[in-house]
Amino acid sequence: MERIKIHFAYDGTDFAGYQVQLEKRTVQLVIEQALAKIHRQDIKVFTSGRTDSGVHAIDQVIHFNTPLTLDCSAWRNALQTLLPIDIQIKHVEKVDESFHARKSAKEKIYRYQIINQREYDLFKRMYEWHVIKPINIDQVKIAAKRIEGTHDFTAFSASKSNVKGDKTRTIHAIDVLEEFGRIVIEVRGDGFLTHMVRIIVGTLVEIGIGRRDQSCIDRAFATLDRQVVGLTAPSHGLYLWKVVY
Amino acid sequence: MERIKIHFAYDGTDFAGYQVQLEKRTVQLVIEQALAKIHRQDIKVFTSGRTDSGVHAIDQVIHFNTPLTLDCSAWRNALQTLLPIDIQIKHVEKVDESFHARKSAKEKIYRYQIINQREYDLFKRMYEWHVIKPINIDQVKIAAKRIEGTHDFTAFSASKSNVKGDKTRTIHAIDVLEEFGRIVIEVRGDGFLTHMVRIIVGTLVEIGIGRRDQSCIDRAFATLDRQVVGLTAPSHGLYLWKVVY
Repeated sequence: MERIKIHFAYDGTDFAGYQVQLEKRTVQLVIEQALAKIHRQDIKVFTSGRTDSGVHAIDQVIHFNTPLTLDCSAWRNALQTLLPIDIQIKHVEKVDESFHARKSAKEKIYRYQIINQREYDLFKRMYEWHVIKPINIDQVKIAAKRIEGTHDFTAFSASKSNVKGDKTRTIHAIDVLEEFGRIVIEVRGDGFLTHMVRIIVGTLVEIGIGRRDQSCIDRAFATLDRQVVGLTAPSHGLYLWKVVY
Repeated sequence: MERIKIHFAYDGTDFAGYQVQLEKRTVQLVIEQALAKIHRQDIKVFTSGRTDSGVHAIDQVIHFNTPLTLDCSAWRNALQTLLPIDIQIKHVEKVDESFHARKSAKEKIYRYQIINQREYDLFKRMYEWHVIKPINIDQVKIAAKRIEGTHDFTAFSASKSNVKGDKTRTIHAIDVLEEFGRIVIEVRGDGFLTHMVRIIVGTLVEIGIGRRDQSCIDRAFATLDRQVVGLTAPSHGLYLWKVVY
C-alpha cells in the first residue's frame, strides 16, 4: 500500500461544501467517485478539514491509501481527467504512513476577500463579499490584534456548532491587507470552530463600519456569548488558503 | 410616453443567450419580466443586438417606451431590485424618439479574453478561453490586420447563420493586447454575423499556434468557404464591450 497526498483547489460555488451529504454535490463525493473509478472499489479519503457550502479552496489537502503503484504525474492526470472542472489538482506526492492530512497539520491559513464600494463587481459576486458602507481599515487592524492569541472562541462559533469539548484555539495572526482595490483578511491558526473565520470577519467588518465597538471582543472572550459579536460573513468570500505541515 | 435607454452588464454563464427562447432563462426574458412587474403590462424591449449563450456583456444597451414618469435613478433602483444579481444596471437615460438601440448604433466593440498557459485559472474558467499551446502574438497581430476592412464575411459566419442577404461588413480595427497575463483581442465593427467574432478569434488563435497559415484569410474572403478558417472560439471568453452611438 502507498499513501498519496493531494493538494488541490476548488471553486465552492456549485458545491454543498466539502463533506458528503445525502443527495448533495460535495467535494468529497466527487473525489471519492473519481477514486472509485480508478480503483474499481471504494477508497477512504482523509481531509485536512471540511469547508462550508460556497467556501473556496486554493490549497486543500487530502490523503488516501492505495494498492495501486502509479507515479505522481499519472495520479495527477487520472484524477484531473475524472474530476469536474471546478476542482483543480495542484500537486501529488507520495508520503509515508506517519502523514495524516488532518492530524499532521500544524497551521491553517484562511483568506477572506471583501470589496468595499457602492457597486458590486458582477464577475466576482461569488468570490468576494460586497460591503457598501465604508470600512475604516485602521479600526479593523486594531480589532484584529485583539483577536490574535489563545482564547476560548465559543462566542465566535456557530451556536449549533458540532465541535464538542474544549473551544480554546490559538490564532497566530490576523493580517489585514489591501490588494487590487480589495480588503483581504488573512487568518492563521492552529484550528478553527464551525463558522469561526466567518464570524471573526463579520465582527471585524461591523467594527470597521462603526456598528460595533472594539470592546465587544474582550466581552466576547469573557462572556462566550455569540450575541456580542458580529454576523457570520457570507461563505463566498472565504478561501482555505494553505494547510501548513 | 417616454423612451428609456438602459446600459447594463451581465454574466452570460447562467443565461441561454440574450434572446427569448421557449423555457430557457435568457437576458431578454428576465428584463421583460422585471418591466412587466413595474408596468403591470408587457413592454416591448429593443436591444442593440443579441448575444449567444455564455457570452458576457460589459455595456449592453436596450430601449423601451413607457407610460410611466419615473426619474432615472428610480428606474435604476426599480430594475436592479427586480433583476437577478447576474445582470447589473450601469446607467439609465431618457432619450428622444429618434433613438433606437439597434438602428442608431454606429459601432460595436467586442473583447475576447484568452489565457495562454499550461494550467487553466480555476476562478476564471467561465470568463476566458484556456489555450495551452503557445500563441505567437506577432503572427496574431499580422493576421488581425488582414481581417480589418470591408469584406464579405460569409466564411467567418456560422453556416446555419440566420442572417439573410448581404454578408458584407466592415471591421474598423482588431487590436491584440496583452493585459494582466492574458491575451485580449478587441474587435470593432459596424455589424457582425452570427458567431463572426468567435470565428475570427478561433482563426487568429489557429494562426498563432501554427495550425493555419496567414494565407487562409485571403482565401476565406475569396472562396467564402467556412472550412478555410478556424474553429468557433468558445462563447465564455467573449464580451460585448461597448455599443457606440
